[in-house]
Amino acid sequence: VEASATDAGQQHHEPKEQRMYGRYTQELGVYAKEEAARLRDGGVRDGGGLRRNTSVRSRAADLLEYEKDPCAKCQMCASRCQKFLISRVGEDWIFLILLGLLMALVSWVMDYAIAFCQEAQKWMYGGLDSNMLLQYIAWVTYPVVLITFSAGFTQILAPQAVGSGIPEMKTILRGVVLKEYLTFKTFVAKVIGLTCALGSGMPLGKEGPFVHVASLCAALLSKFMAALFGGTYMNELRNTEMLSAACAVGVGCCFAAPIGGVLFSIEVTSTFFAVRNYWRGFFAATFSAFIFRVLAVWNQEEETITALFKTRFRLDFPFDLQELPAFAILGIACGFGGALFVYLNRLIVECMRKQKTINKFLLRKRLVYPALVTLLVSTLTFPPGFGQFMAGQLTQHESLVALFDNRTWCRQGVAEEFDYISHSHAWKHPQVNVFITLILFIIMKFWMSAVATTMPVPCGAFMPVFLIGAAFGRLVGEIMAAMFPDGIHADGSVYPIVPGGYAVVGAAALSGAVTHTVSTAVIVFELTGQISHILPVMIAVILANAVAQSLQPSLYDSIIRIKKLPYLPELGMGHHEKYNIRVEDIMVRDVRFITLTSSYRDLQEVLLTGQLKTLALVESRDSMILLGSIERSQLQSLLSHQLGRQRRLEHLRQLAQDNGTHDHLPSLATDSTPSSPCAHTHAHINATTNTNTRQGVRFLVSTQQSSAGPAPPEKRKPKPKRVRISMAVRVSGIAEWEEQQLDMPVDFKNCKIDPAPFQLVERTSLHKTHTIFSLLGLDHAYVTSTGRLVGVVSLKEVRMCIDLAVVSAY
Amino acid sequence: VEASATDAGQQHHEPKEQRMYGRYTQELGVYAKEEAARLRDGGVRDGGGLRRNTSVRSRAADLLEYEKDPCAKCQMCASRCQKFLISRVGEDWIFLILLGLLMALVSWVMDYAIAFCQEAQKWMYGGLDSNMLLQYIAWVTYPVVLITFSAGFTQILAPQAVGSGIPEMKTILRGVVLKEYLTFKTFVAKVIGLTCALGSGMPLGKEGPFVHVASLCAALLSKFMAALFGGTYMNELRNTEMLSAACAVGVGCCFAAPIGGVLFSIEVTSTFFAVRNYWRGFFAATFSAFIFRVLAVWNQEEETITALFKTRFRLDFPFDLQELPAFAILGIACGFGGALFVYLNRLIVECMRKQKTINKFLLRKRLVYPALVTLLVSTLTFPPGFGQFMAGQLTQHESLVALFDNRTWCRQGVAEEFDYISHSHAWKHPQVNVFITLILFIIMKFWMSAVATTMPVPCGAFMPVFLIGAAFGRLVGEIMAAMFPDGIHADGSVYPIVPGGYAVVGAAALSGAVTHTVSTAVIVFELTGQISHILPVMIAVILANAVAQSLQPSLYDSIIRIKKLPYLPELGMGHHEKYNIRVEDIMVRDVRFITLTSSYRDLQEVLLTGQLKTLALVESRDSMILLGSIERSQLQSLLSHQLGRQRRLEHLRQLAQDNGTHDHLPSLATDSTPSSPCAHTHAHINATTNTNTRQGVRFLVSTQQSSAGPAPPEKRKPKPKRVRISMAVRVSGIAEWEEQQLDMPVDFKNCKIDPAPFQLVERTSLHKTHTIFSLLGLDHAYVTSTGRLVGVVSLKEVRMCIDLAVVSAY
Repeated sequence: VEASATDAGQQHHEPKEQRMYGRYTQELGVYAKEEAARLRDGGVRDGGGLRRNTSVRSRAADLLEYEKDPCAKCQMCASRCQKFLISRVGEDWIFLILLGLLMALVSWVMDYAIAFCQEAQKWMYGGLDSNMLLQYIAWVTYPVVLITFSAGFTQILAPQAVGSGIPEMKTILRGVVLKEYLTFKTFVAKVIGLTCALGSGMPLGKEGPFVHVASLCAALLSKFMAALFGGTYMNELRNTEMLSAACAVGVGCCFAAPIGGVLFSIEVTSTFFAVRNYWRGFFAATFSAFIFRVLAVWNQEEETITALFKTRFRLDFPFDLQELPAFAILGIACGFGGALFVYLNRLIVECMRKQKTINKFLLRKRLVYPALVTLLVSTLTFPPGFGQFMAGQLTQHESLVALFDNRTWCRQGVAEEFDYISHSHAWKHPQVNVFITLILFIIMKFWMSAVATTMPVPCGAFMPVFLIGAAFGRLVGEIMAAMFPDGIHADGSVYPIVPGGYAVVGAAALSGAVTHTVSTAVIVFELTGQISHILPVMIAVILANAVAQSLQPSLYDSIIRIKKLPYLPELGMGHHEKYNIRVEDIMVRDVRFITLTSSYRDLQEVLLTGQLKTLALVESRDSMILLGSIERSQLQSLLSHQLGRQRRLEHLRQLAQDNGTHDHLPSLATDSTPSSPCAHTHAHINATTNTNTRQGVRFLVSTQQSSAGPAPPEKRKPKPKRVRISMAVRVSGIAEWEEQQLDMPVDFKNCKIDPAPFQLVERTSLHKTHTIFSLLGLDHAYVTSTGRLVGVVSLKEVRMCIDLAVVSAY
Repeated sequence: VEASATDAGQQHHEPKEQRMYGRYTQELGVYAKEEAARLRDGGVRDGGGLRRNTSVRSRAADLLEYEKDPCAKCQMCASRCQKFLISRVGEDWIFLILLGLLMALVSWVMDYAIAFCQEAQKWMYGGLDSNMLLQYIAWVTYPVVLITFSAGFTQILAPQAVGSGIPEMKTILRGVVLKEYLTFKTFVAKVIGLTCALGSGMPLGKEGPFVHVASLCAALLSKFMAALFGGTYMNELRNTEMLSAACAVGVGCCFAAPIGGVLFSIEVTSTFFAVRNYWRGFFAATFSAFIFRVLAVWNQEEETITALFKTRFRLDFPFDLQELPAFAILGIACGFGGALFVYLNRLIVECMRKQKTINKFLLRKRLVYPALVTLLVSTLTFPPGFGQFMAGQLTQHESLVALFDNRTWCRQGVAEEFDYISHSHAWKHPQVNVFITLILFIIMKFWMSAVATTMPVPCGAFMPVFLIGAAFGRLVGEIMAAMFPDGIHADGSVYPIVPGGYAVVGAAALSGAVTHTVSTAVIVFELTGQISHILPVMIAVILANAVAQSLQPSLYDSIIRIKKLPYLPELGMGHHEKYNIRVEDIMVRDVRFITLTSSYRDLQEVLLTGQLKTLALVESRDSMILLGSIERSQLQSLLSHQLGRQRRLEHLRQLAQDNGTHDHLPSLATDSTPSSPCAHTHAHINATTNTNTRQGVRFLVSTQQSSAGPAPPEKRKPKPKRVRISMAVRVSGIAEWEEQQLDMPVDFKNCKIDPAPFQLVERTSLHKTHTIFSLLGLDHAYVTSTGRLVGVVSLKEVRMCIDLAVVSAY
């Protein structure tokens, strides 16, 4: 079991919302405050690591706990519970609104800061136009400084913030805990690092990191609300649902694309998707996109709410039917391009790893690599130098606006004399025609993006790929326009070809191919505010996906494999030889368990040596019949109750009475128990008579009543350890009392036992196990043979086994 | 178990694709023909009832079978299998293309026929304008005849074709078999019935039935392809995936809305959605929508591929930020309206059921009700009569085009003198202003649609609701335009309000509220070809959903409840009192099982008395330890093998040899076995020596070799039953041989046993059971207690138990 503990073990015995169900006798408000205080402590102790499971399992667990609560049988409580759940739904809305609002603000402020950075660079570059060398130094130094700062800052504050974040979110949403990925430090590092990285003008994207930022935001917000309003916000189930919604918000507020955001986030993060969680994502993403665009209106950037890259293609005749083959070819080419991009990206990372000298050097000087890459890229894009042939002076945003332009740049091979709108002139070089510019732009940006996204800064690859796709589409469109200057349409009216439409199609197809998603189609509609090219876009995206998926894994899966993240891979077509592996071949046979007759000492031992989240409860060591599973936290509370303050005080009081010292312990001063001469039997009598004292004592009563039957006559000499009481009392029998307590058999009466933990039989196939683990989001399952516990199989074993098969797949 | 057999029992022992895995030694082509022939027989025998399970379970089962095949261990076979699977993927594409093509054709032809019907009515009505009475009779008779024909035709041919079809598809995709819902008869009835119903001009829709038609098409196509190319197309898993794709195609080719189609079909039919099946729907729906629109171009209806209800709202300033509250109010109002519609629809059905006299009358004269309703509705819409105040002369399509018009109909309360495009004048009455017309239209259409959708004809409610929503939106828009004649925008330029935008928002919101989906937003974008109103649409749809979902179930869930379809309802918020129900409370304790020592007689008995799809295999009657489950078909083949033709012939030959008659049975003539004098031991010797004879005999060998150990000395006197052999032989020992065969213990060696059927323990809660059943799409699970089989729980029990809780929910 130790072997399988790595995943589960990182999960701590965190507070459970379901404990609340049992506490209706207290006012919820009072309880909430207590719970909040407890959570704060808990949060500090475990460094904010967030544990989750997929929603199904958690919800089942949640309600399983609930149903075990005797209070649930009481009708009054049930109706209260219902009210409570309804209010929870209300809180959902509040949470989602807050999340949307926050993320829209973050997105807008970041965009503002990035635009400012880029303006500053242009200003510096423009002000030095007298001296080419100075201009070059300014052009190059600026991004190098920003990227180096970003890399250094991220490295120091939170190395987890490096990269896209989508692979990590995919893993987290699968049910695996990644430590430190959802902390405040990471949030700060990601936001500041990303702003600097994007401000440098390197070919990096915002989308992937924004998914991570939104998830961070959701995690922090739920912690904050938990501290403010009580324990509800720390519920596992809720966290999962909220994280899925957050991913949608991340994409939604980055592109002002709520629908595309929801679909994209589902496609890249989920395997199975619960339709009932749909609305959360839609609501939050819509709200976020709305606020994001309202901020632009409020800042006088826009007159009203419109799309981010609004296009103005003609509505009446967007494209001709005979252009569709060109769109299809564009889609297929984008499919190959996407696969090549993923391959290139992985190749660069693997090369650097394998080359030991480079690797050693880079490990020592972590900032050298990003600085070198930035230097190279910015030297090549220097506008008076090579950059003049590839529109080097334009930012990503400007390039994209130019590429989506609805006018034709070129007809019959000669650059058309169009009235230059802001950025289009960058594409037109006096000596070189538009085609060469576009081709150079595509080739250079392609490898630059592949290299740049391997830098250790927070960055995504979606936007650069999107841009390359748009350029490629534009190229095809311009070629088509040159070939058919009067359009293809046969009967009568002339409808010239719209190269901007090809750019939109290319952007969707290439980004779809790299990420293996079809929802990029929806994203481009929302980005451009026009849906007229829906059929070409859909055709190209589907073809690009078909090609790319058969050649390479998606970029995110590729990164998961590079980073060796604990993700349960899909069982693909190629792994049929692995279907005759059975659970018995991979299970861990040395299961840690407790029996019905275990003593508290056994419990302590199991808790100290193992790290598993739950422990198996078997009938006896001989029969090994599995009775259920108990959460670690339950066992810990059993143990701490047995040796806890309450019982120590109790014992102390007895001891004091026996010794005649009559210590007046303030908390128990009101008790009026008859004193018994014999310490050995006193505890029992005392307990049974003290039924109307404080709750803690009442707990003790039930404990003793239940264990009274089978248990041997008990000796109780409580030992106060951390309680400040007179030395005379404290000295007596510290070790003795503790030892006695530990030797007693565990009383499971007040312990929540899951009576139906997930069981497999030895002959269950790996495939079936994988399916069940994926669907139910399990992290472990017990293996039984005719009811006898024979082993345990955890996510780790399943993953390892599949990995062996997957390695050779690509 | 009898009780739980209803669902599972309708499923027949249909051909399994996995059988193919074991047959690589034969040419696939030869095998395919055999399989096809077998399938045809099977198809006839079971009346085409289609069985399915959700994909996960089936795939697991598929591959479980595969892994049990010894051939899988052989590397060569594995690579062949891979090729086979790849070709399967190729076949997927072909299937999806064919499905898309077929559905596009069906949709287009149906639209054409409907348009023709409506033109015919207009022509009749127009030609009789001299005589009002004749005109009225023509106006009324035409729809009454069409609807009555539709109802009668459907009733006679396939009553399953009545209604929308989405509730049924939801149920079927859940894993329940609905007999006769996917047959050719139903297809014909649905297509012709729907064409007539829509041609009548009644407020009925095409979307819901089209989902059903597409599923029918997919089911029939896969049967057809199975007959043509072999058994692959009958695979369960494939059928599920194909049916999901078909649902998407249905919506996609109905509205030319591929993305909206996919999302809508997911929302209305799935609970959990496997993201890996996403592309199928997208591909098929895109292809279908493409062909559907290409046909329109080809028919000269359109110049190029465009949206179905193309709008021409201005792009630069679609709406002002300050109009958003109006959109939000519109959304909330639509939410209430949607809930009211669902309630009204259910009320009408329930009223008719409760009123015993009405009910009796309607049951006897089934065609009277639709005729009466049609008479009422068409009387009210008669254009020279009341219809003049509610644009009664317009068809749904024309109304919608007019409502989405980008010009304002009315300013400052006075009807504007706009240049009448085709249909807008219908809305403008000389005496009554546009507001009154719109209000009358909304109110009349609202109840008319609610009533009309209860008629026993194939019809959907989506389109009528969509139209009402558009009218309501238009009303709000016109009011806004009247209130702010120069638009709301403050600084400088005048942007008048676009009431057409409100119509789009209203349509999406009301249809979203009725169906409880948010994807109607995407559908309107695709329908109108404009996405400029994305934020208002999203806000209104989400608000409408929030309101409607808290008041009423969706229309489809409401119909599921009315029709009492075997669907596993969602466990909602309100059922917490039911969480302390455990499996032991609902399970069936009288499980039918077979033991390792069962004889063929026991097998026969179990097969004759029970109807369960799979049977439990336990160690022995005393221990009851569950070893696995066996499919019914496996047991049937075991039994038929034991008493089958092959062994009869074998026995016959022996008998003939013993009798010295030396019958030359052509099929076994080549055998040269040493004849033994003793019939009692002969069979055994014969079998072990005949290892190089035909396959059937080889099978026999392995059977006998395996049973040779524990089995008692056997007496074999085969009895030829259906084989034409000389009477002398046939008479001897018919009953004797059969009885002997039946008394032998079953040999499970060549039988596929699922070693890990799904198990629950008695204490598993209903909630957990529900989750597992939903997720894995189980139809039954065994209940074990420490390995001993104690009961079985099937979908039926779970559903019944939840239904008790749900009844009071609304």
